[in-house]
Amino acid sequence: MYPILAAGTLEVQEITVLLLALAAMLGLARILGELARSLRQPAVLGEILAGVILGPTVLGNLAPDAFLYLFPQEGAAAIALEGVVVISATMLLLVVGLEVDLETVWRQGKSTVAVSALGVAIPMAMGMTIGLSAPQWLGAGSSEHGVAFAIFIGIALSITALPVIAKILMDLNLAKSDLGALIISSAMLNDLIGWIGFAVVLALITGEGTGGMPVWLVILLTIIFLLSMLTLGRSLLHRTLPYVQAHWSWPGGVMSFVMFIAMLCAAATESLGVHSIFGAFVAGVAIGDSTHLTERTRDTINQFISNIAAPLFFASIGIGINFVDNFNLPLVIVVLLIALTGKIAGCVLGAKLTGMSTRESWAVGFGMAAQGAVGIILGELAREAGLINDELMVAIVVMALTTSLLAGPLIQKVLGSTTQKRLQDYLGDKYIVIEPEAATRDDLIGLLAQRAAEITDLDATNIKRLTLDRERVLPTGLPNGLAVPHARIDALKKPCVIVGTSRWGIDFNAADGRPAQLIFLILTPPDQPEEQIQLLGLIASTFNSAVVRQRAMAAKTSTEFLAALNVGSATPADDKE
Amino acid sequence: MYPILAAGTLEVQEITVLLLALAAMLGLARILGELARSLRQPAVLGEILAGVILGPTVLGNLAPDAFLYLFPQEGAAAIALEGVVVISATMLLLVVGLEVDLETVWRQGKSTVAVSALGVAIPMAMGMTIGLSAPQWLGAGSSEHGVAFAIFIGIALSITALPVIAKILMDLNLAKSDLGALIISSAMLNDLIGWIGFAVVLALITGEGTGGMPVWLVILLTIIFLLSMLTLGRSLLHRTLPYVQAHWSWPGGVMSFVMFIAMLCAAATESLGVHSIFGAFVAGVAIGDSTHLTERTRDTINQFISNIAAPLFFASIGIGINFVDNFNLPLVIVVLLIALTGKIAGCVLGAKLTGMSTRESWAVGFGMAAQGAVGIILGELAREAGLINDELMVAIVVMALTTSLLAGPLIQKVLGSTTQKRLQDYLGDKYIVIEPEAATRDDLIGLLAQRAAEITDLDATNIKRLTLDRERVLPTGLPNGLAVPHARIDALKKPCVIVGTSRWGIDFNAADGRPAQLIFLILTPPDQPEEQIQLLGLIASTFNSAVVRQRAMAAKTSTEFLAALNVGSATPADDKE
Repeated sequence: MYPILAAGTLEVQEITVLLLALAAMLGLARILGELARSLRQPAVLGEILAGVILGPTVLGNLAPDAFLYLFPQEGAAAIALEGVVVISATMLLLVVGLEVDLETVWRQGKSTVAVSALGVAIPMAMGMTIGLSAPQWLGAGSSEHGVAFAIFIGIALSITALPVIAKILMDLNLAKSDLGALIISSAMLNDLIGWIGFAVVLALITGEGTGGMPVWLVILLTIIFLLSMLTLGRSLLHRTLPYVQAHWSWPGGVMSFVMFIAMLCAAATESLGVHSIFGAFVAGVAIGDSTHLTERTRDTINQFISNIAAPLFFASIGIGINFVDNFNLPLVIVVLLIALTGKIAGCVLGAKLTGMSTRESWAVGFGMAAQGAVGIILGELAREAGLINDELMVAIVVMALTTSLLAGPLIQKVLGSTTQKRLQDYLGDKYIVIEPEAATRDDLIGLLAQRAAEITDLDATNIKRLTLDRERVLPTGLPNGLAVPHARIDALKKPCVIVGTSRWGIDFNAADGRPAQLIFLILTPPDQPEEQIQLLGLIASTFNSAVVRQRAMAAKTSTEFLAALNVGSATPADDKE
Repeated sequence: MYPILAAGTLEVQEITVLLLALAAMLGLARILGELARSLRQPAVLGEILAGVILGPTVLGNLAPDAFLYLFPQEGAAAIALEGVVVISATMLLLVVGLEVDLETVWRQGKSTVAVSALGVAIPMAMGMTIGLSAPQWLGAGSSEHGVAFAIFIGIALSITALPVIAKILMDLNLAKSDLGALIISSAMLNDLIGWIGFAVVLALITGEGTGGMPVWLVILLTIIFLLSMLTLGRSLLHRTLPYVQAHWSWPGGVMSFVMFIAMLCAAATESLGVHSIFGAFVAGVAIGDSTHLTERTRDTINQFISNIAAPLFFASIGIGINFVDNFNLPLVIVVLLIALTGKIAGCVLGAKLTGMSTRESWAVGFGMAAQGAVGIILGELAREAGLINDELMVAIVVMALTTSLLAGPLIQKVLGSTTQKRLQDYLGDKYIVIEPEAATRDDLIGLLAQRAAEITDLDATNIKRLTLDRERVLPTGLPNGLAVPHARIDALKKPCVIVGTSRWGIDFNAADGRPAQLIFLILTPPDQPEEQIQLLGLIASTFNSAVVRQRAMAAKTSTEFLAALNVGSATPADDKE
């Protein structure tokens, strides 16, 4: 009998348990992940919570038998489940690595180096100091690995979470700005530094254990692996990909190729004792910025891994630990404080040094503070290696999640108006004028200007005149019964939008000849030119949906109008974390 | 310590081996799968071959140490690898199930029932007869399960491979014809019958072993599971899917949902002892025909599973068995003969009974004979359960692959011209006239007619006259410098295409006003009207590519012209098997 699928290796009962465990993890992680997303929180929060519920914290407490049935402590089912989780984690890091674009890092140059150097150095110094001075209190797994433990604490408090940051910046419409590029490339460099440091930590504690290799050799080999993958390996991969793309079936061929390389690299680092996911991450980085990896291929890998492998991995963290028993409030507070202050201080300093404004520097600092999944992965590996105890692991999970939850709102706060608002955010009942008695364009604009004047305490005649002047230069009728008369008003402090509806429609010279039934008077201050364009875009996108248009046109009260807007407000599109 | 990712369950060395084994399986399966595809054979052939090379047959013989390192016979790495393979097989059957469209089966009605009833009954009767009379010679795993063994042989010889058949019909351009629909829906019904029968076989041999449940209860519960999933379960799923589609992230939410259901169903059937993949298959059937499962979601699941899970599973079959030691030629021949004659006879009879022509009936028979992956999966499960020995398993694999390889060419043979030909198949050096000395349309057609006359031994003047008559009714100039003068010629036996090129171009009254530089004289027999249309389509699609057009127009020899055609000939698009 040979091993694979040979009768007797995995019994019927074990396969049943394995499948049920996977189904429970996948199912609950998805439900709670969606719940988190609907509350505008990262999905990883819900996924870990699913594990907490299925694990010793909740299920293990309420129904220990069910818990032990689903997640047996030993035997073939436990081993097989762990194998699936290890591979999921490896694949997850491949995807994280694929998102690192080395070109971007180099292009941002000096600022990136300054921000990540200080952003790593300060929290790392703080972490190492406390790690060396109070390892026992902090939660060292054993006393043998003093230095390794201290370095790990330094890394754990200085790492950032690229996927979380990318998501936050996208949500804030900053992903493609200079500021966003700086934050992202600093985070990439930061992550690279962190992972290399972590590989060293693992080498320190496992080097002598596994292959009998001396520590210096493990570190040397790890660095050789890293450098050769990012230079020779990368260029070889970039030359092989077009061949694969051209001659193998698509996108399947490229997918297998990427997975194959990732598993080889994972095996390489695992055999060194620096964990498989470091290799998968490096493989992702080496492959990721190839122009031959098409969006479609990337997306298929991404979808499957972030929807199947990631939930399995994050749920497994919740299952592996008792969050209530191991919750140590002082420890949580200390870890959280150091992570926040150290990281933010370092990044703000770095950004200031390269000449950024105070406001932008703070935004960089807050953005870089998000730890998310990456901090949790590192913590889990350290716990696995016996480097940290369960209490510290819980503190790291809480810290990583809290920093991710805070980053978005804090950037928003410091940058002010750059948030991606919805049209609803500009409108209230008094901004909506349902079917005013106006038969012509000029009368209607007059009535809307009247309402704007009441709200803003400005002169209605002036608003009407400026709007009509603009209207005469170029009519603002849009297709599908929309019109967007607008003007810039000197004394205005913030943008003001007044909506008017018209059952019979009023001609605004639209390209499709249709009279306007939804008319938006858009008034903006002259020093905020971007607001006008943003509002125009917002109106166009909101009313792109025929359902929203029809409901808004049929609204008999301002409440009905506002309700119509909510029909079209999509749930957040992205779902990586 | 809790089980998942707890230190010590999977050692560093075991994880390394697991990753290397997966990388080797994925990598080699892809390379040989692509090789098979380039030879116009199903990829599954190459994937199993990869396992044969990595397994005891080749690697185990040449380098036993390397084989045992990569695929250890016991221990955690072996268990984890088997867990991954079990899940891969389960997911693979989910995808196979997703392709079954129950509506199509019902719509085809009577013919479907006749073809699959006889197509199952005859080979099953033959298989059971030989299974009962010579179980030892055939390769029964033990003598206790006489009836179960005979039923299994019957099923193994009567099953069809839906994915293989679908692929063959697509290649032959028959997938959407009535004939194709009949073959596909018969195959679906056939598969359903086969899987249910197989569930009964497993219940017979494992029912008393696992949960201590009596056999009749296992069978009853299996049937209840099947019926409730295909009625109540199906309608519940179809009602839940729109909700998931609307409120969860997309396509991730639907993907997780489908996987969740599949794993639950797999666990249900596994716990009954009728194997997890039966449950996954039924889940796929229940979900598969929902209109709410969009192409995009289907495609993402499909791509990942058929490119990652399927190669892993098929390679594992090659790794699990020594193909040389267990190759028993008489047994292979008997199994192959019964499978072919029984299946083909049954289906041809069934098709004739419903009033199909002899030619079409044979096409149905040959199509239904393809066993491919499904036969192999059943065999593997039976081997696992100790029902059959390794020699019979090898015979079943060889039979399944041979029938799949034969089905395409045999259908082609019996249906004659309906093959999807390439333009190259019509052309040879003498069919290509590079820049003939003709300045007008009529002269050019005359010269091409001359060449056609030389090849076909017909009268050149007649060909020219008929073509010009047709040309005067409606000019045949196409955009982009193409022209397709054509005529039906009474004495012609098979289609004849003559190509002429013209550097300066000759006016054929194209819509874009461009003179024709590539002129195709298309002559077809009057009794094959479809040939003309097919050829016109073939020319249009081949020269749709600007690169192909330019190279063909610039060709200085007929060889260069033929080479230009190959630039555009894509590799086969589909890659399921």
